[in-house]
Amino acid sequence: MAQETFASKISQSLNRVSSRNGICGSDVHIFQVPFVKVPTATTPDPLTGETLPITMGHEFSGTVVELGEGADGNKFPVGQNVIVEPIFSCMKASCGACTAGTRNLCPLVNCIGIGGFGGGLAEYITVDELLVHRLPDGIPLDIGAMLEPLAVSWHCVKRSEFKPNDTVLISGAGPIGLFLLKVLRRELAQEHGATLVVDPLSTDVVNATMKATDGLGVHIAFDAAGIQATMTAAVQSVRARGKVVNVASWEKPPQIDLNLCLLKEITILSSNTYTGDHPDMLEAVAAGRFAGLEGLITGKVALDDVVEKGFNALINDKDSHVKILIHP
Amino acid sequence: MAQETFASKISQSLNRVSSRNGICGSDVHIFQVPFVKVPTATTPDPLTGETLPITMGHEFSGTVVELGEGADGNKFPVGQNVIVEPIFSCMKASCGACTAGTRNLCPLVNCIGIGGFGGGLAEYITVDELLVHRLPDGIPLDIGAMLEPLAVSWHCVKRSEFKPNDTVLISGAGPIGLFLLKVLRRELAQEHGATLVVDPLSTDVVNATMKATDGLGVHIAFDAAGIQATMTAAVQSVRARGKVVNVASWEKPPQIDLNLCLLKEITILSSNTYTGDHPDMLEAVAAGRFAGLEGLITGKVALDDVVEKGFNALINDKDSHVKILIHP
Repeated sequence: MAQETFASKISQSLNRVSSRNGICGSDVHIFQVPFVKVPTATTPDPLTGETLPITMGHEFSGTVVELGEGADGNKFPVGQNVIVEPIFSCMKASCGACTAGTRNLCPLVNCIGIGGFGGGLAEYITVDELLVHRLPDGIPLDIGAMLEPLAVSWHCVKRSEFKPNDTVLISGAGPIGLFLLKVLRRELAQEHGATLVVDPLSTDVVNATMKATDGLGVHIAFDAAGIQATMTAAVQSVRARGKVVNVASWEKPPQIDLNLCLLKEITILSSNTYTGDHPDMLEAVAAGRFAGLEGLITGKVALDDVVEKGFNALINDKDSHVKILIHP
Repeated sequence: MAQETFASKISQSLNRVSSRNGICGSDVHIFQVPFVKVPTATTPDPLTGETLPITMGHEFSGTVVELGEGADGNKFPVGQNVIVEPIFSCMKASCGACTAGTRNLCPLVNCIGIGGFGGGLAEYITVDELLVHRLPDGIPLDIGAMLEPLAVSWHCVKRSEFKPNDTVLISGAGPIGLFLLKVLRRELAQEHGATLVVDPLSTDVVNATMKATDGLGVHIAFDAAGIQATMTAAVQSVRARGKVVNVASWEKPPQIDLNLCLLKEITILSSNTYTGDHPDMLEAVAAGRFAGLEGLITGKVALDDVVEKGFNALINDKDSHVKILIHP
């Protein structure tokens, strides 16, 4: 759909209530130092045309309360629980990324709740049905709100081309890092988690990784933290022809030892959100392959408390929190 | 072969005269600021057991003058012109890299002329026949001395998975960059060179690249220069899901904008020398697919002049020189 069509489809589409919304690391970054493409009070988002203030929230689930004109009432009947894939893009025929099925790489890509089109913290939001997915039966709305970051990790594991016997280092025990572990466990079809958990403040991550892999290093190092120390450890921890997978937001560009990358012929991949990943992921969710997601919800906060008990809690009490959900 | 066997095979092997030797960018680095694994006067190379002084030279061709015990006289009769693949590794059964057919990634890898085992600047050198290749008939020794860096570029293009319609940016117009162009031309099976050549000191490389690719960026950016500016330009010049291929030696680790890498899902590959690439490359050389290599020889210097007219010329007069050959 062209930009114009996209906008017009919105108005024909679903009206739904946002009942659960997670706070994303990106939200915290925006709250602190915005480096993603956030509109300002005078510079609008090129696709939504909106300027600040913009309603935040892009990790959300909810219930359909009303259908827009032309929306598919069979797929999305009133009362149906749904989740939203919040990434929107230009969808122009001239856009290489959009036409290649990689909407996530569109130069104009942005996100509901960041670039406009409403946000998960609104009481109600209207969303194009192309961006809406049925929440599988039996999956509560709280878990639904966790599926956006799960999709980020799902896409990332696919990008990494992880194979069942690969050894893996995950840096960053925030939601994306922990969800990576969940997706990898599911790939392994085994009920085990990490075989080794180290605190980088007290343990040398590279030494620990080398010891655990007979001195060879891991096949894949995921960086879900985005700081110099984790990227340095990742490059040092992978084996010959190993992969470093970047799925972080960086406040500063890291220095990367490209001599070492060359000596080991390391590949550094990056993985950006998701594109076309939701159907397969939701099938796995429906099949019960992601047990224990509710254990990662470390707080439920009312909308009025979002600054103090939401953002500030995530900033000031990192060790206690993984995912905080906001309810209206 | 184990380390012991490797050493013993050497003594059973070919004796040959080194008649042409190119000066490599790595040689210049070693001459200036060694960052590759060069033995010191007190710390020997772990495989050769040698300490400084070590005879330099790893880009060389020559003629077989004598056969060691057990060497294949049918393949390498006296008088045969040959080239040497100078990368040696531990070849131990316990080495993941060596047993995986990636000798170039062995943790103990080094190079004849850097880690020991003689060097191309010697009058004669004894080399294990496993590292020796027949120079195709009709190819002069001068060109033979150019085939080691050609193999680096050959391997690099293979690593990049370049496809005929891909657009490419090459940063660095030294031997590796120019040889990359030769290999890519051969892949294209067309007699054209670069479609656009820009001087990065006077032209904005990223703008020029974007203009030349309808604003999309190139599929692959090769960095054969190894400085911050070229890596920054490479990351900015590739398209969505494009590749940056590192084939340089870095005096300083560059900062890399991993947010931009993430937005475009860029892959940063590295390519280290070669492994098993010589047979295919030599077949292409024999088939006449690399015309004009002699044009890249910008100087021929006697051994006595190697410092002044060799190293210092390459350091102080970069614009005039591509490859300087040393003859005994």
